[in-house]
Amino acid sequence: MTQQEAPSQRTTIKRVPQRGDYQRDTIYQILDEGLVCQVGFVADGQPVVIPTAYGRVDDTLYIHGSPASRMLKTLLQGIDICVTVTLIDGLVLARSAFHHSMNYRSVVVFGTATLVQDAEQKLVALKAFTEHVIPGRWPEVRQPSRNELAGTLVLSLPLVEASAKLRTGGPLDDAADYELQVWAGEIPLKLTAAVPITDSRSPRQIEIPAYASNYIRHSNLARFSQYL
Amino acid sequence: MTQQEAPSQRTTIKRVPQRGDYQRDTIYQILDEGLVCQVGFVADGQPVVIPTAYGRVDDTLYIHGSPASRMLKTLLQGIDICVTVTLIDGLVLARSAFHHSMNYRSVVVFGTATLVQDAEQKLVALKAFTEHVIPGRWPEVRQPSRNELAGTLVLSLPLVEASAKLRTGGPLDDAADYELQVWAGEIPLKLTAAVPITDSRSPRQIEIPAYASNYIRHSNLARFSQYL
Repeated sequence: MTQQEAPSQRTTIKRVPQRGDYQRDTIYQILDEGLVCQVGFVADGQPVVIPTAYGRVDDTLYIHGSPASRMLKTLLQGIDICVTVTLIDGLVLARSAFHHSMNYRSVVVFGTATLVQDAEQKLVALKAFTEHVIPGRWPEVRQPSRNELAGTLVLSLPLVEASAKLRTGGPLDDAADYELQVWAGEIPLKLTAAVPITDSRSPRQIEIPAYASNYIRHSNLARFSQYL
Repeated sequence: MTQQEAPSQRTTIKRVPQRGDYQRDTIYQILDEGLVCQVGFVADGQPVVIPTAYGRVDDTLYIHGSPASRMLKTLLQGIDICVTVTLIDGLVLARSAFHHSMNYRSVVVFGTATLVQDAEQKLVALKAFTEHVIPGRWPEVRQPSRNELAGTLVLSLPLVEASAKLRTGGPLDDAADYELQVWAGEIPLKLTAAVPITDSRSPRQIEIPAYASNYIRHSNLARFSQYL
């Protein structure tokens, strides 16, 4: 795995540092494949973590502002957050209980989130939310009204203090354990789409678009073949 | 959806409260189906969120202590954490960009995590980690040695201040938008297992156990049929 230097002290992978990756491409690919991020912030001295949708545009991560909206109202300068995205790629079954593991790709981003106030930038973020989840969808749907735009809280987080962490491959057992009569290996996991369910309240029949009937999220095997 | 009262003020679902559920069964089912949780804590006044493995035994959540280990060393009384588990069940495609959504089930737990010091309880937690991910695996593998047990940091979190949040079903559009010539509906998503990959370093051939060759994680459709 090619490594670069961590962009900050708190971004440095402390545990199993050889799994760390600070390359922009790796970080972006993980962010682009994930569907939901976890936003952590501090409220009254206590940690709060909330799952929410997001989108990426170049080196900016946009998140729905609702989780931290109460905080933001009192902190106009922005709010310190930590955002994680985690993809589970497989279960790693070792011969010993101790060496069981998971194959995963995760990203952690630290930074100050600020409220997007500019209407044009907000529209860019909303488009990113939709296109992030269903590429091709945005041009086909009714665009946000002025009221909808005004009613949506969007936060912007620069992708500067970001790091990725990955594990791939099979189990790593203690030397003596390889002789055990225990099956060991990996169970690959992927997020798959089932047949789309058309909304019953559609007044007439409309064909299911290809981006829905052939929805594919999981692309880690191709994208991350260099690690396998 | 049957609702109970929230166990605490901070556990009360603030946004879209009708999606909230404080029933123990709902919370446990979501925790049991998830594979990875997100642990949030405060370090030097800053929020930190780390993905990690976990297991549940009755009303206790056990997590690997590594994420918060540096904190714990200085906070022997325990550490305030917030743990989330999020399952993505589908993408909801509305006729307007604004009403796009996801179907999901998530749990948020607040509380004070304490270090598990008792060796027997630690073993219970380690068994829970393995059985949580691959039911049936624990009795077949080499059990933890004294050293492995000592080297594993386990945190315990009571499942008291916990809440679930769920969304199911199709899109909810503005009345006027139902006339639009836009396909709307849901793309169901599920985590599926591929054919297991046997570790190449196995000295002899061992049959793949049924819990690996027939691995099924996703059971929300059956479990949550009451919401559909």
